[in-house]
Amino acid sequence: MKTVNIIGLGNVGTHLAKALEHRAVVYAVNSRDFSGFRSDADFSIIAVSDNAIRKVLGNMPSSSSIIAHTSGTTSMDVLIRKRNRYGVFYPLQTFSKARELNYSEIPFFIEADSRETEIELCDLANLISDKVTIADSTKRRALHVASVFACNFANHLWAISDKILRKNGLDFATLRPLLKETLEKTTYMSPREAQTGPAIRKDTNTIALHLDFLSSDIEASEIYRMISSSIISDARSEKS
Amino acid sequence: MKTVNIIGLGNVGTHLAKALEHRAVVYAVNSRDFSGFRSDADFSIIAVSDNAIRKVLGNMPSSSSIIAHTSGTTSMDVLIRKRNRYGVFYPLQTFSKARELNYSEIPFFIEADSRETEIELCDLANLISDKVTIADSTKRRALHVASVFACNFANHLWAISDKILRKNGLDFATLRPLLKETLEKTTYMSPREAQTGPAIRKDTNTIALHLDFLSSDIEASEIYRMISSSIISDARSEKS
Repeated sequence: MKTVNIIGLGNVGTHLAKALEHRAVVYAVNSRDFSGFRSDADFSIIAVSDNAIRKVLGNMPSSSSIIAHTSGTTSMDVLIRKRNRYGVFYPLQTFSKARELNYSEIPFFIEADSRETEIELCDLANLISDKVTIADSTKRRALHVASVFACNFANHLWAISDKILRKNGLDFATLRPLLKETLEKTTYMSPREAQTGPAIRKDTNTIALHLDFLSSDIEASEIYRMISSSIISDARSEKS
Repeated sequence: MKTVNIIGLGNVGTHLAKALEHRAVVYAVNSRDFSGFRSDADFSIIAVSDNAIRKVLGNMPSSSSIIAHTSGTTSMDVLIRKRNRYGVFYPLQTFSKARELNYSEIPFFIEADSRETEIELCDLANLISDKVTIADSTKRRALHVASVFACNFANHLWAISDKILRKNGLDFATLRPLLKETLEKTTYMSPREAQTGPAIRKDTNTIALHLDFLSSDIEASEIYRMISSSIISDARSEKS
């Protein structure tokens, strides 16, 4: 079995360690003091936030591992300095420690310093997932930016929605069939074709009433205004 | 069986007519010329866009029906002028003609001019759905505004995400496991607790790289900037 240092015990590291359990020998490594680090491991996967990757690299004991980070955005080249073989091991998912995940359906995107390293990192990812793809830094960054919009930002709109509902004695769970259908629709048509609501109908009257309803919440109002006008201008550019 | 004029053959009207099939006698009425309108029907449901409700009311033949509109935002009081009994029959869902829907799980919110009308409109909604609730105009508007954020606006972020991916030769379907998990998480924790990504980590470096990546798309950049700062300020207000 392959041997793997997973450096960082946050959301991503914890899930990667779990996903590789019984499929590889995993050493869970504390990213502060490198306790548990094995210098003879086949791989050292750096699963820390982008801000911390350089510091972790600076403190990492020398080893014979292939070194890879798990970031969607950080360039692969930060890894050159260690003089090891290196690459990127990017899982496209939102990780929270408490959640059980079906690892086999998580897309992994691999980039590497050579064809040989690429194959080894793909083999490692294939132990976890059925969806392993090669992607260069530009594609990977596009995936990450797109995920931020689709996941983090959409989730923030749900947080705003939740706040509005709670303030009015209502429960976010009421929206569940709506959310399920909104997501389901995008399987059958593009999100753009699936768009409904006051903005796409250019229903300025309803938009004005909604902004009036939100008037005490400046942030929500600004987001309402900006996204509505983006929907309207998008519809316009389609027609022209 | 109750008899129902469904006025308006758009997304909502089409689905309501289908949902009531075999459970009531439905008259599908063209909202422009009122062809098909039955003045002796028990209910006349106005399923047109908010902008058109007043015009439809002005042209509607007189009848003995209970008149209700299906809008989340338009006040119930616009219906007073017809001197009929009246109310609101608001289904909380995103309707596209081509989609098959499970009508029984769609929440309906009812408001009426009297307790008697309320009961009759609830009975009608109960023919369709297992989730029928009374809600006054404020609650209904809160539900509609919350739905616009949660459904229409989230969907627009998916449209932006889709555009970024296509521009880079990638497919929105790649994000499906991510989107599924993002939605699923909100069953177990509030959207606010579920938040992940660069903004909640205050990862300013990644945010700067993403804004650089988006620099040719002013609209996407502005939305990225605004929602990121909203996530950051939300996290701050939780701590304080």
